[in-house]
Amino acid sequence: MPKTSTKFDQITPSEFFYRNRDLAGFSNPAKALYTATRELVENSLDACESSGILPKINVRLIPTSDDESKTDPRNYLLRVIDNGPGIDSKQAPYAFGRVFYGSKYSLRQARGMFGMGGTMAVLYGQITTSKPVSLITSTNGKDFHKFSILIDIQNNSPIVVDKDVIQHDGSSGTSIEIKLEGDALRSSSKLHDYFRQTALVTPYAEISFLDPHGRFWFYSQSTNQMPKPPGETKPHPHGFDFEAMRRLIGSSDDQTLQKLLMNNFHRVGPTTALNFSKFVGIDSNSNPKDLSNSEIVNVVDYLHKFDSFLPPDSNCLSPLGSDILNAGMMNELNPEFSTITIRPPSAYSGFPFIIEVGLAYGGKVSRNGVSLFRFANRIPLLYDEGSDVAWQVVKEIIDRRNYKIPDNAPLAIITHMCSTKIPYKSVGKEFIGERPEVERELKNGVREVMRQLRLYLSRKGSAEAVKRRQNIYLKYLPLIAEFSKELSGAKKLPKYESLMKQYSNSDNTNEEADINA
Amino acid sequence: MPKTSTKFDQITPSEFFYRNRDLAGFSNPAKALYTATRELVENSLDACESSGILPKINVRLIPTSDDESKTDPRNYLLRVIDNGPGIDSKQAPYAFGRVFYGSKYSLRQARGMFGMGGTMAVLYGQITTSKPVSLITSTNGKDFHKFSILIDIQNNSPIVVDKDVIQHDGSSGTSIEIKLEGDALRSSSKLHDYFRQTALVTPYAEISFLDPHGRFWFYSQSTNQMPKPPGETKPHPHGFDFEAMRRLIGSSDDQTLQKLLMNNFHRVGPTTALNFSKFVGIDSNSNPKDLSNSEIVNVVDYLHKFDSFLPPDSNCLSPLGSDILNAGMMNELNPEFSTITIRPPSAYSGFPFIIEVGLAYGGKVSRNGVSLFRFANRIPLLYDEGSDVAWQVVKEIIDRRNYKIPDNAPLAIITHMCSTKIPYKSVGKEFIGERPEVERELKNGVREVMRQLRLYLSRKGSAEAVKRRQNIYLKYLPLIAEFSKELSGAKKLPKYESLMKQYSNSDNTNEEADINA
Repeated sequence: MPKTSTKFDQITPSEFFYRNRDLAGFSNPAKALYTATRELVENSLDACESSGILPKINVRLIPTSDDESKTDPRNYLLRVIDNGPGIDSKQAPYAFGRVFYGSKYSLRQARGMFGMGGTMAVLYGQITTSKPVSLITSTNGKDFHKFSILIDIQNNSPIVVDKDVIQHDGSSGTSIEIKLEGDALRSSSKLHDYFRQTALVTPYAEISFLDPHGRFWFYSQSTNQMPKPPGETKPHPHGFDFEAMRRLIGSSDDQTLQKLLMNNFHRVGPTTALNFSKFVGIDSNSNPKDLSNSEIVNVVDYLHKFDSFLPPDSNCLSPLGSDILNAGMMNELNPEFSTITIRPPSAYSGFPFIIEVGLAYGGKVSRNGVSLFRFANRIPLLYDEGSDVAWQVVKEIIDRRNYKIPDNAPLAIITHMCSTKIPYKSVGKEFIGERPEVERELKNGVREVMRQLRLYLSRKGSAEAVKRRQNIYLKYLPLIAEFSKELSGAKKLPKYESLMKQYSNSDNTNEEADINA
Repeated sequence: MPKTSTKFDQITPSEFFYRNRDLAGFSNPAKALYTATRELVENSLDACESSGILPKINVRLIPTSDDESKTDPRNYLLRVIDNGPGIDSKQAPYAFGRVFYGSKYSLRQARGMFGMGGTMAVLYGQITTSKPVSLITSTNGKDFHKFSILIDIQNNSPIVVDKDVIQHDGSSGTSIEIKLEGDALRSSSKLHDYFRQTALVTPYAEISFLDPHGRFWFYSQSTNQMPKPPGETKPHPHGFDFEAMRRLIGSSDDQTLQKLLMNNFHRVGPTTALNFSKFVGIDSNSNPKDLSNSEIVNVVDYLHKFDSFLPPDSNCLSPLGSDILNAGMMNELNPEFSTITIRPPSAYSGFPFIIEVGLAYGGKVSRNGVSLFRFANRIPLLYDEGSDVAWQVVKEIIDRRNYKIPDNAPLAIITHMCSTKIPYKSVGKEFIGERPEVERELKNGVREVMRQLRLYLSRKGSAEAVKRRQNIYLKYLPLIAEFSKELSGAKKLPKYESLMKQYSNSDNTNEEADINA
């Protein structure tokens, strides 16, 4: 048999994503334009929020002046300017010129998750137009650092083609300008959906967008109440693995197991640490560095099994809340009935999360099957719905038909997951994986809003039955009155009008009140 | 306003995937067991095929002896043994202990694509059980190299815990044994689907599987005709980008543009290279290293626009072919009607691909909406169907109702894409991205089989109409005969029986023949 010797290669992360850009959401010029735009906007929003700055973000997407082709796909100039804290001039070239180099690798609720969205946009621009990215950033509002950057893909390293410092009075922030191949015609509707839905869940931001057709979209800031900047948390013991424990023991200075647990885990106090040590059968005063490998394995095993740890604290999370969810539904769907449920904080693999679910019925809601609007850490997710755990949950619950909702009911479900870590299944951040804990909370949330809907519909049903009955009374009462008059030989009709009036009023009011209860 | 300084970190590829294992298909213990199994099996199949060896693969999945828990999720021992070419003992630790180190980074049809599936399985096992992976490999059938390996995740590097060489007479191959947390109960049906469908499209392989319930599944080799090992190809000029061109010019020794084009591109001969040089307006004798940056940009631009390049040659591809597709459908679905279409070779971004589409109607096909069976480079894709471009195409075509197929028709569509590079949208290799060229070929393929089905159904419809008519004749002919006898005063009935017989036979046969034409 012929045998060929197998050749092995080592590649860098940027080389990997250069070769496999479908993984990061750059499958075609339309999708690439959408992904590049949202990655830059999300970077800006994260930067502002983490510094407590009310975001003002300005996006411009226009065809490049040098491109002669009048039809898509063609080259575009994408510019995003924010009023964020700016990027340290030493870090800036790396932040946009190196894959797996980022500020998002911490346990903190953020839109960015992988520290590579901005770099992927730069990389995609470079390979489709061969042009460097232009970056201006200032951390103090006085010194503005200008960079022109290419990426050395094989070495995963930025090449600074040109740099300069300009001094003028302004405010801190970052401006990035990328030339890239795109298809604005085919991405236009998704882009507008993205901006509209982002504005909806970020009412404290001002976002403007000049689109390729010269139209200017302005989403004004409708509140200056900003959610408090999401904090960084320690990991919850339930999700801790061997790798993490080995590293922790290696790097920590804690002299006892008790201290190690108290100082490095979410919501573990002295008593809990003591009780846990008893549970696992190791002296709480032992030095962690003296633990044998099998003892470490035991500790980690029991971290998962010990059920007296406090549940994760949601203080580090920033859910949308009823007001924003409600305003969003009213604005977009103007439903006849709506309801919201916010689930208590939960955790998967030690990461705290909160699920919020809204339901809208009637009004402008489409009748073409149930509509699902998904959000994760305030990002609208617009692609690959079918693979999202939320869609699977909604589909399963609706299909089961426990809620007696007709097939073409005008029904929309809104889900939001916020967490220090969203378990995305693709680098393009389009859908959430089937973590059992997330699935469970989504199920509970969706069931709850569906129950509310069923209640509303059944009350509405009885109200309608009452109305029908009442209509019959109103129709027959005069006849009966007339008949009674004849029968009794009375001179005038009984005073049934006031009776009818009274009856119809009281009944109506009660039922209405009941429906909205 | 409070400002926090932003902290940046650099992480290694294995650290990245350790933190984000949902990306690689390891979202939960059930999915992880499935993904680990298929990654190892696909490594083995690829290894055998690239060396022209008829694959014999033995898979065993049993609970680990030391795990006391009797319910899922618990720790499993996954072992995969193949008769492949083995791995060079110097490479072996890296092949399973370093992310982005692999043998799959070439333009060659293979199941593996990212060079990280095996390593991810090892990494997942390590973080869930803290146990090293055990690897035995031999390239000559005499020296068997044994390794016990952990991964230093922070440094993306293997740690060889233990190694040994054993000498005995055997054959080349690799055996890998991983301890990992899994949920066999919840992954059981997908695992069996995976093995059954894999065996179906790999009839030249022998695959055995001992499952956690002690059941032994044996898929015998049903042919020793192996597809020729897929070859490596040069890139097609239509998909070449600036980055690739810059690298090519930097590394190549070709003295003229013409030679550069001829020696490094798929199906570019002297005349095509000359014509292209004229088209782009650069002397075909210019030394590529003397080209200015704007000339290089022009060359790449025109590579995409020049329409006289030969289409990609499919010789490097290994489609399933009608026989395997047909056998597969018969085995699985035993349909009343089936049809297959194999599209001509096409290319996206310079990567050649072939789309094959099968359709099965009736028989054992489910009536719960259209069933879609997806394959890519002979891998069955079982998860995240909704996000696959094939599902989007099928849904769009069926929804349009041009083919007059009733809602609950027993209809199954089978799609296979083979290519030197499958544009997967997730590292877990579960679904294919919306590359416009792939979408177009899928559409053409699905439309073609749907036309065949419509034709069949309309013929069947006429056949049934004829049968109904015939039944009416058969019912009334005796009565008419009786009536004629009475009317004419004849002594016996006309000889209508033979007439009926003859009529019914001939007609039947013709129609049947017609349906199957």
